[in-house]
Amino acid sequence: MLHATTIFMHAGIVEESVTGVHRLYQLSKAGKLCVPAMNVNDSVTKTKFDNLYSCRESIIDALKRSTDLMFGGKQAVVCGYGEVGKGCCQALKALGSAVYVTEIDPICALQAAMDGFRVVKLTEVIRQVDIVITATGNKGVVTREHMERMKNGCVVCNMGHSNTEIDVHSLRTPDLIWEKVRSQVDHIIWPNNKRVVLLAEGRLANLCCSSLPSFVVSVTAATQALALIELYNAPQNRYKADVYLLPKKMDEYVASLHLPTFDAHLTELTDEQAKYLGLNKVGPFKPNYYSQNKKFYFCNKKSIPCWSYTFASTACSRAPTSHSEHLTLWWTRQAAEAFTKSVAGGLIASFEPPTRTEPEWEA
Amino acid sequence: MLHATTIFMHAGIVEESVTGVHRLYQLSKAGKLCVPAMNVNDSVTKTKFDNLYSCRESIIDALKRSTDLMFGGKQAVVCGYGEVGKGCCQALKALGSAVYVTEIDPICALQAAMDGFRVVKLTEVIRQVDIVITATGNKGVVTREHMERMKNGCVVCNMGHSNTEIDVHSLRTPDLIWEKVRSQVDHIIWPNNKRVVLLAEGRLANLCCSSLPSFVVSVTAATQALALIELYNAPQNRYKADVYLLPKKMDEYVASLHLPTFDAHLTELTDEQAKYLGLNKVGPFKPNYYSQNKKFYFCNKKSIPCWSYTFASTACSRAPTSHSEHLTLWWTRQAAEAFTKSVAGGLIASFEPPTRTEPEWEA
Amino acid sequence: MLHATTIFMHAGIVEESVTGVHRLYQLSKAGKLCVPAMNVNDSVTKTKFDNLYSCRESIIDALKRSTDLMFGGKQAVVCGYGEVGKGCCQALKALGSAVYVTEIDPICALQAAMDGFRVVKLTEVIRQVDIVITATGNKGVVTREHMERMKNGCVVCNMGHSNTEIDVHSLRTPDLIWEKVRSQVDHIIWPNNKRVVLLAEGRLANLCCSSLPSFVVSVTAATQALALIELYNAPQNRYKADVYLLPKKMDEYVASLHLPTFDAHLTELTDEQAKYLGLNKVGPFKPNYYSQNKKFYFCNKKSIPCWSYTFASTACSRAPTSHSEHLTLWWTRQAAEAFTKSVAGGLIASFEPPTRTEPEWEA
Amino acid sequence: MLHATTIFMHAGIVEESVTGVHRLYQLSKAGKLCVPAMNVNDSVTKTKFDNLYSCRESIIDALKRSTDLMFGGKQAVVCGYGEVGKGCCQALKALGSAVYVTEIDPICALQAAMDGFRVVKLTEVIRQVDIVITATGNKGVVTREHMERMKNGCVVCNMGHSNTEIDVHSLRTPDLIWEKVRSQVDHIIWPNNKRVVLLAEGRLANLCCSSLPSFVVSVTAATQALALIELYNAPQNRYKADVYLLPKKMDEYVASLHLPTFDAHLTELTDEQAKYLGLNKVGPFKPNYYSQNKKFYFCNKKSIPCWSYTFASTACSRAPTSHSEHLTLWWTRQAAEAFTKSVAGGLIASFEPPTRTEPEWEA
Repeated sequence: MLHATTIFMHAGIVEESVTGVHRLYQLSKAGKLCVPAMNVNDSVTKTKFDNLYSCRESIIDALKRSTDLMFGGKQAVVCGYGEVGKGCCQALKALGSAVYVTEIDPICALQAAMDGFRVVKLTEVIRQVDIVITATGNKGVVTREHMERMKNGCVVCNMGHSNTEIDVHSLRTPDLIWEKVRSQVDHIIWPNNKRVVLLAEGRLANLCCSSLPSFVVSVTAATQALALIELYNAPQNRYKADVYLLPKKMDEYVASLHLPTFDAHLTELTDEQAKYLGLNKVGPFKPNYYSQNKKFYFCNKKSIPCWSYTFASTACSRAPTSHSEHLTLWWTRQAAEAFTKSVAGGLIASFEPPTRTEPEWEA
Repeated sequence: MLHATTIFMHAGIVEESVTGVHRLYQLSKAGKLCVPAMNVNDSVTKTKFDNLYSCRESIIDALKRSTDLMFGGKQAVVCGYGEVGKGCCQALKALGSAVYVTEIDPICALQAAMDGFRVVKLTEVIRQVDIVITATGNKGVVTREHMERMKNGCVVCNMGHSNTEIDVHSLRTPDLIWEKVRSQVDHIIWPNNKRVVLLAEGRLANLCCSSLPSFVVSVTAATQALALIELYNAPQNRYKADVYLLPKKMDEYVASLHLPTFDAHLTELTDEQAKYLGLNKVGPFKPNYYSQNKKFYFCNKKSIPCWSYTFASTACSRAPTSHSEHLTLWWTRQAAEAFTKSVAGGLIASFEPPTRTEPEWEA
Repeated sequence: MLHATTIFMHAGIVEESVTGVHRLYQLSKAGKLCVPAMNVNDSVTKTKFDNLYSCRESIIDALKRSTDLMFGGKQAVVCGYGEVGKGCCQALKALGSAVYVTEIDPICALQAAMDGFRVVKLTEVIRQVDIVITATGNKGVVTREHMERMKNGCVVCNMGHSNTEIDVHSLRTPDLIWEKVRSQVDHIIWPNNKRVVLLAEGRLANLCCSSLPSFVVSVTAATQALALIELYNAPQNRYKADVYLLPKKMDEYVASLHLPTFDAHLTELTDEQAKYLGLNKVGPFKPNYYSQNKKFYFCNKKSIPCWSYTFASTACSRAPTSHSEHLTLWWTRQAAEAFTKSVAGGLIASFEPPTRTEPEWEA
Repeated sequence: MLHATTIFMHAGIVEESVTGVHRLYQLSKAGKLCVPAMNVNDSVTKTKFDNLYSCRESIIDALKRSTDLMFGGKQAVVCGYGEVGKGCCQALKALGSAVYVTEIDPICALQAAMDGFRVVKLTEVIRQVDIVITATGNKGVVTREHMERMKNGCVVCNMGHSNTEIDVHSLRTPDLIWEKVRSQVDHIIWPNNKRVVLLAEGRLANLCCSSLPSFVVSVTAATQALALIELYNAPQNRYKADVYLLPKKMDEYVASLHLPTFDAHLTELTDEQAKYLGLNKVGPFKPNYYSQNKKFYFCNKKSIPCWSYTFASTACSRAPTSHSEHLTLWWTRQAAEAFTKSVAGGLIASFEPPTRTEPEWEA
C-alpha cells in the first residue's frame, strides 16, 4: 500500500509497490527493462510491515485523528482482504466494530470467512455501514451509486494503492456541496442534507494522517537500503536487465536487526538439529522460492516521495518517540549512510517529503 | 475516570465519579449532606461507557496522537484492572502489545489472569516495558524510583482519576531536563540522556488528547440530564437529604435511546415469558439492587468543567462526524434543553469547556 | 448457569443460582423463609467463574466433543448477553465464528453492540445460522417455529439455566424422527430429510459434556464452603431469617486462595496509599454494596446434584490434570473437610454426582 | 502438518507435507525423481486449512478432550511460529492463556512479536508454563532436560510434523513411572511425585484426538483429488519428471467450491476493472508465482494413511454434523469418485484409516 521506486540510470531499480508489481507483469512481456531491478515488495519483512502490521495501526489512527469516531458498535465494510485489508479488519474487529468484507478472489474470501467476517457484495451492506474502507488496488470499487445509498455520516476512506478506488470524481457535481471540516476531512452534502465523510479526498488515508510508526519505516528503509547497496556493490556480471528478489538471507538479516527492539530472544539450532533440517545454523531458514521469477519493471513515479520520506525520517531521530524507534531509526540511518556513500549521495536531498499533518519527528 | 458533579443549593447533586464515590464513603458517616443526591456513577450505562468502552478507544487515540508509537510488539503495563484498566488492556492486547497488569485487589487480579494478562508487581517489569499506564485512582503508583529504572523512550501516562497516580512532582529536580516536544508531550531527559515520555504531565491522557467520542458523551450526558430532570421535577417529599441511584428503568431508558444508532433490534417478551420471569414487558429487566444503599456525597469541584463540557458538546452538532454521533448529540440536546428549562437555564452558560486540542465539532 | 442450593433445616441455605435468585424475589414478598440464607451468586468470584469464564471454556468443549464441528466461518446466534452469553460470544468470536446476539434488555443489548456483535431478533437470522445457543434463563426462547426455519445441520444447544429455553417438547411429534447419533447428540429429522442437531435434549450443554475445569469448580466450592462454614460457626444472633451476601472480604479471600495457581503477584498498598484510599491494607478493597439487600429464598431442588458434584470432585485429585487443578482441588478439599466437620458430615455422601461422559479425575 | 503422498508408478506423485517438501529439497539435487509430481502443499487453500485454521481448532479440542484443562489464566509456550504455531497461539490467546513463542527464524520471530507474543528461549519459561506445544518440524525441541524443569502437571504435546519434536525416548528410564490415565494421555511421574502430562506419546496431538473438521478434510481432499485428476488426464507431454504446483486457477476453484458453505458472496469484476487489473473476470486472480520452481520429490511413506483417511471420511456423510460438513463431504465424494474412476479405483480401498478415538461420522 506504501510504495517506492527509485531509478538510477546506470545502476538499477528498487520497487516495493504491491500493485505496481502486479501492473508491471502486464508490461514485462514487452521487454522494456534496460537495468537490473530488485523486487523488495515480496520480501516478507516488507510485505508484512508495510501492509498487515502498518495498516492495523494506521487505519485506527487515520480514522480517529480525522473524525474522532468511536469504533465500538460501528458497522464497517472493508473492500479487499489482502494484507492491507486483513490489517484493517483485524484492528476494527479488535476495537468492537462489526466488520464485513468484499472480495473478488475466492481464496481471500475463504480466509475472510474463516477469520469470522461475513463476505458480502458491497451493495448488500452499503445502506447500513458507518465506515467504508477500500483496500483492493482496483478502481471504481466505491461508486457514486454506492455513495448515493450510504447513510448520513458514513465515513469513506482508501487504504489501498490506487486513489481511484473511490470514484471521488463522480462527487464533483453541482448538486453536491463539499464542506472541508478540517485538514483531510471533507463532508459531501446531499440536497437532503445527508453528509458523507470523505478522508484525504480518496488518497491514502494513512499517509495523510501521520500514522507511519518509524519502526515500520525503518524495516522498509533497511530492506530497500540493503537492496540498493547490493545493486551498487555487486560485481558487473552478477545482475542482468532482470528482476531479482532480495535473497532470503538478507530478508532474515533485516528482521534480525529489528528483533532487539522487542527484546525478542532467538533460539539457535544445535548442530544436530541443523543437520536434521539441512540448514545452516545462521540461516537462511526459508528457501529462496521466488528467486527464479524473472519479471520486468518500470519506474512508478508516484511513489518517489514516499521513498524519499523514508530517508527524510532517518535524519530526524533527535527526539525519538520510544526506545524501539530510537534503535530502528539508528539502523536506518546507518543503512542510509551506507547507501548514500555507495551512490555518492546528493540524490535523496532533491526529493520532497510528502505532506504530513504532524510529523512524528517534530520537536 | 470521567466525572462530574453539579450542585444546586436548593435542588440536589449529581455525582458520576468512581473515585469520588469511593472517597465520599469516608465522609458520609460525618453526615455532611444537606440535599438529595443522585449516584449516576453506578448506573450501568454510565460505568460501562465512561470507563470500559470509552477508555478502550481513548487510550489508543491518546498514545497515537501524542507519540505516533506503534502498538504491535510493544510491552505495556497497566496499573489497575478496574473498568478503565480493562478497557486499556483490551485495546492494547487487541493491537498486538504484550500487556502486564498490576493490582491490589485479588478479585480484579484473578480476572486479569483469566483474561490472559500476567499479574505482576510494577518493579518486576518496569525495566522492560515500553508503555506504563496508570488506572487505579490511587496516588504514587508510579514513583521517581520506578521512572529511574524505565528504559529510554518509555511512555508514561495516566488514565485514572487522580493526577497524582504518577508522581510527576518528583521529576521536578535540577538533574532532569524537561523538553516539550509537542502539545501534551514532555520528554524528561536524564543526565545519561535517557528520555521518558510523559503525557499530559500526568493528568488524564484521554481528556487532553481529544478522544471522547460524542456517543460516549451523549450516554453520560443523557444519564445525568435525566437524573437532574428527576431531581427538579420530583414532588417535594420524594427525595430526602440522601443519595439515590437512578432507577434501573431510567438506566434502561438511556440505553434504549442509544440503540438505534447501532441499528440494534431488541427482542420483546411474550406475555407468557414476562409472566414466567415475573417482569413487566417494558422493563425494568434488572432488580433495583442498589436502591437501598443510602450514602452521603459532597461536591467534587474538579469535575464541574467536564460536566459543562458535556453540554458544550451538545451545542455543536453542526457537522456531526457520523450518523450515530448525529442521533446521539440530538438526544443529548433534547435532554439539555429539558434540563435547562427545568432549572430556568442560564447556569450552564457560565461554565467553561475544558481545553481540547482538536474539538470534534470544529468546522 | 450452574446453581446449587442446600438446605439444612436448622442451619440455613446457600444459593448460587442466578435465575434462582431472580425467581425468589417474586416469592420473597410472601415471606416464606424460616432460616438465614447466603446469596453466594452475587459474589464476584462465583459469578465470573461459574458464568463468564466457565462458559467461555465449556461452550467450545461441549460443541467440539459432541459434533466435531469447525468454528471458523460458522454463523452463530447467542440468545441472551448476560455473563453466560458474554462467555459464549467471546469464545465463538475468538475462534472465527460470526456471532449474532438477541436480547430483551437494552443495557445488555448496548454492551453486545459495543463488543462488536450485531443485535438482532432471532427470526432475522434463524434461516442462516449454523449454531443456536440459548443463555437467557427464560422459557420458549427457541420455538418449534424457529426450528422449522433452521437450515440442515444447524446445531442447537442450551447454556442457560432453564431446560425449557429450547422448546424440546414441541419436537416430540410423529412427523419428526429422532436419531441418537452419539451420547448427548440427537438428530431431529424432518420429512424433507433436514436434520437439526440437538445437544443434551435441551438441558445444560456444558454439564453434559465434561467441560467443567476443576479450577472453576474449586472457586465455586470454596465460596460455598466458606458460606456454609460461616453459617454453622456463626453465633446464634448473627443471622436472622434473611438473605445475606458473603462479605466482600470473604469473596476476596477466595480469590486470593486461587491466585498462586496463576503465579500472579499482588501489589500491596503502602501505608500512605491505604490512608489516601481509606482502605485497610489487607482489604476489603470493594465496598459491601449489597449487604443491605435482604431477600427471602427457597430451596431449588434441581440444583442439589451440582453442589454435591462439587464435593465429589474434591475427592478425586489422585491424578490432577495440571498444577493449578492440583492446588485448587487441594484447597477445595480443605474447605470440604472443614465444612463436613462443622456439620458432622455424612450428608454429602448421600448425594449422587451428575452423569459426566469422561470425568477429568478418571484414572 | 498433516500430510499425504501417493505414488502411482506410471502416473505421478502428489505431495502435501510441509516438512516433507523441505526435506526433499535436500535430495532433489541427486535427481532421483522418475515421474512428474504435484506440490499440493504450496496451494494456499491447503496450507491455510491444514495448518493455520485446522490447528486453531484442533489444539483446543485436543487439550480439552484429553485433559479437561482450563485455558483461562494458563501460561503456554508454543515452539515454532509457522502456520501451525500461529494457529495454536491464536486459539490459546483468544481463550485467555498467556502465550510465549520460541523461534529460530528471525522473520517468524518478528511476526510473533508484532502479534503480541513474547519471543523467548524455551529455558527462560520452561519452569513456569502450564502447557508446552511443539510446532517446528524439527527434532529434540523439548528435551529430557526441559522436562526435568517443568512444574507438576505441565501438559506437553506435539502439533508439528515430526514425532521426534518431543524427545519421548528420553523419558523411558527406570526412574520415571508412566501412568496411562486415559486414551492418548500418559502421566510421567518423577521420583518426587511430579507429574508431566504427555499427549499421544509425542505423536500428532490433533490426529489422535478427533479434531479434524470434515470441512478441512474436504478442502485438502478436493485439492489433492484435482491434482491427481490432472496428472491422470493430462496429455502425454504436459508434465515431465519434475515437480509442479497446482495452477492458481485450480487453487481458486477449490476455494470457490467451499464458499457456499459460509454463504459467502463473491464480488465480480466489471469489464472495466478486469481490464484495469489485466485479469480475466473469472480468475486466476493471483500470479502463478511458484510455477517455475521445479523441484524433485520422493514418496513420504508415513503420510499415506492420512490421505486414505481423507477418502475414508468421504464415504461417511450419513449423519453429517452440519450443513457445511454435508456440502463439503458431498464435494469430496464427487472428487473421490472422479479420481477413482480416472485411476480405475481399487487402490484407495487397500489403505487403512488412522486410529481416531471418536470418528465424527460415527452414528
